[in-house]
Amino acid sequence: MKNFADTPMDIAINAAKEASEAGEVPVGAVITLSGEIIAVAANAMRKNADATAHAEMAAIRMAMKKLRSERLENCDLYVTLEPCTMCAGAISHARIRRLYFAAPDIKAGAVENGVRFFEQASCHHRPEVIAGIGEEKSRVLLNEFFSSRR
Amino acid sequence: MKNFADTPMDIAINAAKEASEAGEVPVGAVITLSGEIIAVAANAMRKNADATAHAEMAAIRMAMKKLRSERLENCDLYVTLEPCTMCAGAISHARIRRLYFAAPDIKAGAVENGVRFFEQASCHHRPEVIAGIGEEKSRVLLNEFFSSRR
Repeated sequence: MKNFADTPMDIAINAAKEASEAGEVPVGAVITLSGEIIAVAANAMRKNADATAHAEMAAIRMAMKKLRSERLENCDLYVTLEPCTMCAGAISHARIRRLYFAAPDIKAGAVENGVRFFEQASCHHRPEVIAGIGEEKSRVLLNEFFSSRR
Repeated sequence: MKNFADTPMDIAINAAKEASEAGEVPVGAVITLSGEIIAVAANAMRKNADATAHAEMAAIRMAMKKLRSERLENCDLYVTLEPCTMCAGAISHARIRRLYFAAPDIKAGAVENGVRFFEQASCHHRPEVIAGIGEEKSRVLLNEFFSSRR
């Protein structure tokens, strides 16, 4: 249920929850521009039979379509899990201003873990990164999802 | 003009040429399965107003759709330029078997340059990599494109 007091990260977590109910790995993403939400997406790899259908990719494409622009320069991205290498690359290409992510992904993350893409010379646009908001809620969702499949 | 003697890389270079004529950075990609071409795509960032619309991303999504599978395990990808960080991530997610790329991309590549993603611990599927086929043709296309814009 949506609530007008929901923050962008709450909405991303809600999208992750809905994904989980549909059998998807629970990851949700939201993009804002000047405080307004312009895109909400969730992981849809299973639904779309597409291994690249991560929440961030979908949200970025949705926002570009909405703004009719290939640059999201004043946009902020909220995502419930640390972006992977593919998504970190997409975030940089899209020129996202600020990235908020909830839970770290030690195995496949590419921001604070893995290739730490935004710190590399081959990264030509670096968003500001804020980690940890909503971490506990996101982690619970992910743990529940994976433990129910074991 | 297509020719039955064309190799997959020739067809990728042709797609790059067509992209160039449409004002796009000339990069083309082809995916094969058992020697048969199942996807051909080119850079369409400008046309789609989408900074993630790289040739590899489009070809991978096209192949998944065609095979109705999120795994391209027996597929090979031919691309005229070394994949960037985003595309290297997508190639790994898609479980591409073999990656052929023509020209290296010193500035933004992520295979032999940059984050060298396939050599990292956070990369969970590594394609076999064959570099250099068609390099000269691809380089000429890219140089012509960028020198005409200066």
